[in-house]
Amino acid sequence: MRTVSPETAILLFSCPDARGIVAEVSSFIFSCGGNILESSQHNEPETNTFFMRVAWDLSEFTIAPEEISEAFRPIAQEFRMDYQVELASSRHRLCVFVSKQQHCLYDLLLRNMEGEIRCDIAVIIGNHPDARSVAEFFGVPFYHVPVAKADKAGAEQRQLEILQEHEVDLVVLARYMQILSGEFVARYPNRIINIHHSFLPAFVGARPYHQAYERGVKIIGATSHYATAELDQGPIIEQDVVRISHRDHVRDLVRKGRNLEKLVLSKAVQLHLEHRVLVFQNKTIVFE
Amino acid sequence: MRTVSPETAILLFSCPDARGIVAEVSSFIFSCGGNILESSQHNEPETNTFFMRVAWDLSEFTIAPEEISEAFRPIAQEFRMDYQVELASSRHRLCVFVSKQQHCLYDLLLRNMEGEIRCDIAVIIGNHPDARSVAEFFGVPFYHVPVAKADKAGAEQRQLEILQEHEVDLVVLARYMQILSGEFVARYPNRIINIHHSFLPAFVGARPYHQAYERGVKIIGATSHYATAELDQGPIIEQDVVRISHRDHVRDLVRKGRNLEKLVLSKAVQLHLEHRVLVFQNKTIVFE
Amino acid sequence: MRTVSPETAILLFSCPDARGIVAEVSSFIFSCGGNILESSQHNEPETNTFFMRVAWDLSEFTIAPEEISEAFRPIAQEFRMDYQVELASSRHRLCVFVSKQQHCLYDLLLRNMEGEIRCDIAVIIGNHPDARSVAEFFGVPFYHVPVAKADKAGAEQRQLEILQEHEVDLVVLARYMQILSGEFVARYPNRIINIHHSFLPAFVGARPYHQAYERGVKIIGATSHYATAELDQGPIIEQDVVRISHRDHVRDLVRKGRNLEKLVLSKAVQLHLEHRVLVFQNKTIVFE
Amino acid sequence: MRTVSPETAILLFSCPDARGIVAEVSSFIFSCGGNILESSQHNEPETNTFFMRVAWDLSEFTIAPEEISEAFRPIAQEFRMDYQVELASSRHRLCVFVSKQQHCLYDLLLRNMEGEIRCDIAVIIGNHPDARSVAEFFGVPFYHVPVAKADKAGAEQRQLEILQEHEVDLVVLARYMQILSGEFVARYPNRIINIHHSFLPAFVGARPYHQAYERGVKIIGATSHYATAELDQGPIIEQDVVRISHRDHVRDLVRKGRNLEKLVLSKAVQLHLEHRVLVFQNKTIVFE
Repeated sequence: MRTVSPETAILLFSCPDARGIVAEVSSFIFSCGGNILESSQHNEPETNTFFMRVAWDLSEFTIAPEEISEAFRPIAQEFRMDYQVELASSRHRLCVFVSKQQHCLYDLLLRNMEGEIRCDIAVIIGNHPDARSVAEFFGVPFYHVPVAKADKAGAEQRQLEILQEHEVDLVVLARYMQILSGEFVARYPNRIINIHHSFLPAFVGARPYHQAYERGVKIIGATSHYATAELDQGPIIEQDVVRISHRDHVRDLVRKGRNLEKLVLSKAVQLHLEHRVLVFQNKTIVFE
Repeated sequence: MRTVSPETAILLFSCPDARGIVAEVSSFIFSCGGNILESSQHNEPETNTFFMRVAWDLSEFTIAPEEISEAFRPIAQEFRMDYQVELASSRHRLCVFVSKQQHCLYDLLLRNMEGEIRCDIAVIIGNHPDARSVAEFFGVPFYHVPVAKADKAGAEQRQLEILQEHEVDLVVLARYMQILSGEFVARYPNRIINIHHSFLPAFVGARPYHQAYERGVKIIGATSHYATAELDQGPIIEQDVVRISHRDHVRDLVRKGRNLEKLVLSKAVQLHLEHRVLVFQNKTIVFE
Repeated sequence: MRTVSPETAILLFSCPDARGIVAEVSSFIFSCGGNILESSQHNEPETNTFFMRVAWDLSEFTIAPEEISEAFRPIAQEFRMDYQVELASSRHRLCVFVSKQQHCLYDLLLRNMEGEIRCDIAVIIGNHPDARSVAEFFGVPFYHVPVAKADKAGAEQRQLEILQEHEVDLVVLARYMQILSGEFVARYPNRIINIHHSFLPAFVGARPYHQAYERGVKIIGATSHYATAELDQGPIIEQDVVRISHRDHVRDLVRKGRNLEKLVLSKAVQLHLEHRVLVFQNKTIVFE
Repeated sequence: MRTVSPETAILLFSCPDARGIVAEVSSFIFSCGGNILESSQHNEPETNTFFMRVAWDLSEFTIAPEEISEAFRPIAQEFRMDYQVELASSRHRLCVFVSKQQHCLYDLLLRNMEGEIRCDIAVIIGNHPDARSVAEFFGVPFYHVPVAKADKAGAEQRQLEILQEHEVDLVVLARYMQILSGEFVARYPNRIINIHHSFLPAFVGARPYHQAYERGVKIIGATSHYATAELDQGPIIEQDVVRISHRDHVRDLVRKGRNLEKLVLSKAVQLHLEHRVLVFQNKTIVFE
């Protein structure tokens, strides 16, 4: 992947396929003084849908960054595009949800510190208090929001308030062991990234490492996906696997899986932050 | 993996775990002049079961090869072992079942020719006639046994006759697109190896590549397992995976999957032929 | 990877980077009635060089296929492009060079038969006669051209005649154990693909599996590259690896390596045939 | 890998191959009331050397842990073994050497905290002060020992004092950017683990990611090895790789390599701590 300079615009869109889209888009950028840095496209033949991601240098662009979206609207309307214009310099604000296990949380904080994941980790919410000290060490506000079975709605209400207060636009479930309600998920469509510790669609639901051990598979996996109302059924962003053997007991799967979970979740978050992911019919187009 | 000289014995067993099993077994081999070449063991804590595979050089062994099994019986009885003694020099006789696709068949024939898979490919059975010319090129008898929906039992009867006639002890389903009956499978317990073109338990049944495409996974797999009465539920011997992207349509998955199918099936066959696989409670212990 | 319909044009070029290249190229295609199917680009910042591959549907294109190259020349000259226009329907003519080992040869022939590698395997040349029967089975002319140390030049002369006679435009060295002269290589620049059985640049030269065994590496590899005058130094097209352990002796590395060699060589050949490879300063840009 | 209970003994040895070694060793363990938990062996045919690792439960063992080594001596002498007896409960004392980059240090500290790497991280030495705050957060003493070109010997003297004072028995070079002298290395034979950021033996020495970029490889790697007097030539314990493309610039290789470095170094440290590594003729036998 390429790093992006602060003065880069990114256009993402999908539309019915048609002749001349690439020509029209690239002419728009060129005629306003932009220099294309990256460009990817994809065509889904069943639905005849066209997808594109194009990034260009704004250093000599004649349209102000905040007006690009409006300036592009006529082309978007002509081709009936569903589109978004993003600036690479604008930083996402993340909230990490966590329970007791902290390896994914640490991993995100460290990659953020090293500049690998470019965003502001604005706030951490835990249904257990365990992550407080690491949050403090990295200087991130931490909220302990216990989730009582009897008052799940109340807990979600509190979580939503925190998200709003901290102006969060991406929620990352870093081995958060609670199921979010459909209402909650609907508030952040394609903006909640979960890590499931199996190679989906195998071993949906609880205790996937136990399920994998029972079935006697020779490879285990981890899956990062956007959360949807249906558990573990959302659009898959990234997956990875590791080989195991009959010698590996459940605790070994847990240990080997931790590496996978960190790699897969951080990769998915990075792809999202770089505006490389488009969701279409419960699948993702990932422009790497 | 190690190649085995013609004068090697292999002992495979499982039994309730107990103190002194390894000592007893290795003393038996040593006291009769054997030199241990390989030895592996495994303990399944839930069931307290012990598994072992040991191979030794027979060049100065004082017991004749055909009498080893009987000579070992007292130890086996003492520890209540389920055991088998094999000679590395004895060659399995394989039957390959095939339909129209021939990549797995070719792969097995070529690896056999190159000495990688040590066995006699005794006979090939196809429910279509397509594989006849390759069978002839490699000098293997070919039988075309069509499988009519109305008379599946008749076809299986014919197949069983061919297997008996050719003294087959291992059946390999090399992308054979018919489901074998429970009765057929019961005739060759843990002696029918199938290749399923998905990462089981994901995408059981028909058209797994289509299922994978629909779900939008980022990795596909192949699984080799012993056939049991329940479709795609048998003990898994080997699995492997390959990365895909949104650009890969079903036909690309089919193409990428072919490589996997060949690798995974041939690996499973080789492990079986080298007596490295023990089946226990629908899982495999693979002593690599 | 995507399959290409028979009426697809492919434009490949490199040039000094400049504003408006994509706009100009895509407008050219659009204005003549073409529909872009795939488009990839790359920028090499050190040398400020721009690379692009674009494929478009010719079904309503207003320029005849054989005239596209000429029609595009003004744009190419404006941007000082080094360019080529290819038709997906035109089939390459391959010659496979082989010695005694036949696994890579078989692999290419089978993938060609299955439609995975789209080309005409026009002729096979062996410095040993071993591959004659497989060549005959697949209906490909075979020439036995022994290479005597004293008369290597004579053998190469004979090989060049065969290549010309069979109108070969791509030479594949499928574990061909002879070193070609600089003069020979110069006749087919970036048109001779070799498979080296190591993870280059580790273990250059003879007996790489022995070298790997001696060094005690934990992973071995295979590398496919364009042959250049310097042994094993040409631009790398594709590499892959497999894990080994202390248990693997040289013969095991050879066996595990065979799988790699087949996968890596066939992938490189396929990438070349689909016009996805550009060579620049002894490195490859691979537009997958 | 299996976790070991506190009452487990581990015997590691190498000796000239001979009949009856396994029988003798397992009888010794059995006759003293031990129950074998794991047992692995290996034979190096060139040198006719035998290697073995065996772990057994001490809960009913009739010899006191501290006397096992002496009790075993007669067998060791009979077979001319080079042997060691270890207790799984005894914890190694680690010193981590670090420069400015802290990802490997963090990784080791976190895995230690999560119980994945069982040892005492006794002390951290940095030739830069950067790691002080993380050391404090994890409660590990930190020493800043600058290494001036003119007085490398003085710095090493200081380092050795710290190692002695903290009773360190394993030194881990976690991207420590200084070369240790042969004298220093000789003080900790096979007890200094280094991580080199390339797929050795490719790209020895400085700036391997730059070297990899220049050569245009399609896969990069990381290698963990015991440090010896010769730079990057020590016995390899573990390696891993990741795929790259022409799009990846040096900074991308650095980023992708960080994941590898963490995985490979922590795996090597864990293998060492579990007494699974034997060094023989500059290669490792790894009993996984």
